[in-house]
Amino acid sequence: MSRPKPLSGFPEFLPAQRIVEQRVLDALADTFELHGFGSIETRALEPMAQLARKGEIDKEVYVVRRLHAERHGGGADADELGLHFDLTVPFARYVLENSGHLNFPFRRYQIQKVWRGERPQEGRYREFLQADIDVVGQAVLADHHDVEVALVILEALERLHTEFGLPPVLMRVNNRRLAEGFYRGLGIDDHLAVLQRVDKLDKIGPDAVRDLLTGELGLSVEVADRCLELATISAPDESFVDRVRALGVSNELLDEGLAQLAAVVRAGAAAAPGRIVADLKIARGLDYYTGTVYETELAGLEHLGSICSGGRYDSLASDGRTSYPGVGLSIGVTRILVPLLSKGLLTASRSVPTCVLVAVDSEETRGEADAVAARLRARGIPTEVAPKADRFGKQIRYADRRGIPFVWFSSGEVKDIRSGDQTPADPDHWRPPAEDLVPKVSA
Amino acid sequence: MSRPKPLSGFPEFLPAQRIVEQRVLDALADTFELHGFGSIETRALEPMAQLARKGEIDKEVYVVRRLHAERHGGGADADELGLHFDLTVPFARYVLENSGHLNFPFRRYQIQKVWRGERPQEGRYREFLQADIDVVGQAVLADHHDVEVALVILEALERLHTEFGLPPVLMRVNNRRLAEGFYRGLGIDDHLAVLQRVDKLDKIGPDAVRDLLTGELGLSVEVADRCLELATISAPDESFVDRVRALGVSNELLDEGLAQLAAVVRAGAAAAPGRIVADLKIARGLDYYTGTVYETELAGLEHLGSICSGGRYDSLASDGRTSYPGVGLSIGVTRILVPLLSKGLLTASRSVPTCVLVAVDSEETRGEADAVAARLRARGIPTEVAPKADRFGKQIRYADRRGIPFVWFSSGEVKDIRSGDQTPADPDHWRPPAEDLVPKVSA
Repeated sequence: MSRPKPLSGFPEFLPAQRIVEQRVLDALADTFELHGFGSIETRALEPMAQLARKGEIDKEVYVVRRLHAERHGGGADADELGLHFDLTVPFARYVLENSGHLNFPFRRYQIQKVWRGERPQEGRYREFLQADIDVVGQAVLADHHDVEVALVILEALERLHTEFGLPPVLMRVNNRRLAEGFYRGLGIDDHLAVLQRVDKLDKIGPDAVRDLLTGELGLSVEVADRCLELATISAPDESFVDRVRALGVSNELLDEGLAQLAAVVRAGAAAAPGRIVADLKIARGLDYYTGTVYETELAGLEHLGSICSGGRYDSLASDGRTSYPGVGLSIGVTRILVPLLSKGLLTASRSVPTCVLVAVDSEETRGEADAVAARLRARGIPTEVAPKADRFGKQIRYADRRGIPFVWFSSGEVKDIRSGDQTPADPDHWRPPAEDLVPKVSA
Repeated sequence: MSRPKPLSGFPEFLPAQRIVEQRVLDALADTFELHGFGSIETRALEPMAQLARKGEIDKEVYVVRRLHAERHGGGADADELGLHFDLTVPFARYVLENSGHLNFPFRRYQIQKVWRGERPQEGRYREFLQADIDVVGQAVLADHHDVEVALVILEALERLHTEFGLPPVLMRVNNRRLAEGFYRGLGIDDHLAVLQRVDKLDKIGPDAVRDLLTGELGLSVEVADRCLELATISAPDESFVDRVRALGVSNELLDEGLAQLAAVVRAGAAAAPGRIVADLKIARGLDYYTGTVYETELAGLEHLGSICSGGRYDSLASDGRTSYPGVGLSIGVTRILVPLLSKGLLTASRSVPTCVLVAVDSEETRGEADAVAARLRARGIPTEVAPKADRFGKQIRYADRRGIPFVWFSSGEVKDIRSGDQTPADPDHWRPPAEDLVPKVSA
């Protein structure tokens, strides 16, 4: 076999890059668990009927068939399976399937690969890792969970910033009720039609949006301008409320939306100053959100688009009798890591977990080196034994090439190969400096 | 949508079961890293051409196509993709693809789902999790790695036994060279043909195997009997060597195989007494192994078959100029866990990571409860705030249903809801007993 080539859109990491990914995932999972979110995993495959429910997305789905079934003909049918393209659809199915065994409100996180048959480009992959949190209620779910999930995510992303040097984030929050109430207060019936067009503001600019609102929807210039004014409001604190009020529209749904959004921004600004803004043009496209919506950018990497999005949905799932409202966010782990890793903006201090390499004097005494290694491992120190009884210079090079910081000799001495310091040590008591125990991830 | 039904062959876990799986995976990964194995993940999809290389397995592969491509016709072609059915084929491809960026011997572990379109039954799934370790050399790989991977796996599986109460294991080891050398020493040319038939010993019995060897392969009854005698040798120590010698066959390859197998069994018996035997009937079917082969059973659950298998392959991969010999083992995590979890033989002490629930007096004072929770989390204690300011009895029931052991009250007291003990506590200093910090997994 000649050397295989990478598949476009299916990024894979080298060992040192994978260490960065592992540390990032551990930090995310740890933060989620500290807040009482439990892990679940769902199967990678769902019935196509399930995946196709949201019409527009079906073109990106990967269909999966047993080769055997394939060879015996038979086109698409109801039982056909596809790879999940997000973690929300399978989670909604999991909640319905297991509702009798779950306790509500149910708090879960889910870190899994998803697949989309899109054209690959920077920030878009065909296989990528997502890390989702959601809180789901049975029939009802209190508003304070909209605040909570934003704070948990901000805490997790801030940890990636302070611990590993990832860029800081800016989370933009809006509320669908606020917009709907505002439009209704202006006498507009088809609020979704307005939202869809206002959503294009960043792409096509205010004049083009105004033309769409007056031309396609028949709004007066005055009403269209008011919709545009609402969309340009943005603030890092509750001051956005007064600016909306100043537009002179009143509506009950608007009041609800303003209160909900103010609660999220107030708590977010207190817990993570400078990391959250109310941004009244955020719409999250045609998604099924019904209240709070979130988008998040990495400072300096805004061109990647939102690396963490989500919102509130009044009916994540429904079995006809009971509906399950939820609120959650999804971090695009691959979208964050691939650009940072491929540009070398984020690195691990070594390519292996190993902290100590035990040198081998000769193949006859390998057992003694093994015994030293076992004693170090028994105290949690990741240790390898040199694969070959080469001369010591070569064994040290083995460690150096992998970034292993310490080499242990049968003389009972340990060498820090970075400084060259060599000191006597006892395998039952010696400890590496805490920062050397596991690979260090930094920017 | 009505309640969805599970897909046969695609097991999913409830939250408490998933906690067991997480703890098992953490213990495996931790053991592997202590021994200097680094993690990699490969994409789930490989070109069909790659997956079909081992002829017999292609009937079980899942073919994957973009729905869009599907609709526009086009049958099977060379670029077609399939889901990987093990982690060895993708790892071999990864090694070749990245050989210039890897350091050899390269030690990796890989914990990922794999997919096979087989008929589902106990111990056989269509989606299941494997945990593999391998050491791969460039051109050469020393024999002591055959010993090492067995010891690492035995240490990992023993940890599952002692820490979580999984059944103890028995690893059966053999060596392909030993068998090949023995057959050659008997004057047999087609050693693989003999191996294939001897492999059926457990299924069809010695008489039927003798018939195959004499009938199909034309061996004399005496030679056939010698092959059968070899296959019945089994010992927990090096004594198997003398028993093989007593059969009076001599051959260089046989000597090599005996020495290699003796080294594995000697080290295994010393490190994990009672957990390893030389078993000279183990063949691992038609697989590509060329030296040591391993199979592993769970005590009392032998009907599940081997839950951890592997071996040495002289050429895991080759780019035509360089070959990459390797040795490794694969743990069938799903095959172990699904039977134990579904029978309730393995449980977690709670269904959530949460250790403390902070009670809420009224929605107006939720912020105070949030502040207490943040102080507990800052010291690594997983904490939730009650979702509703219900009467305390109901809030305690919220904790009880999830197995959360402690409820914190605004009075500055914490209650162990199992014992009923309630004591004054300071959120900056109070610690739960160590065994309550995270869910306990036990049999």
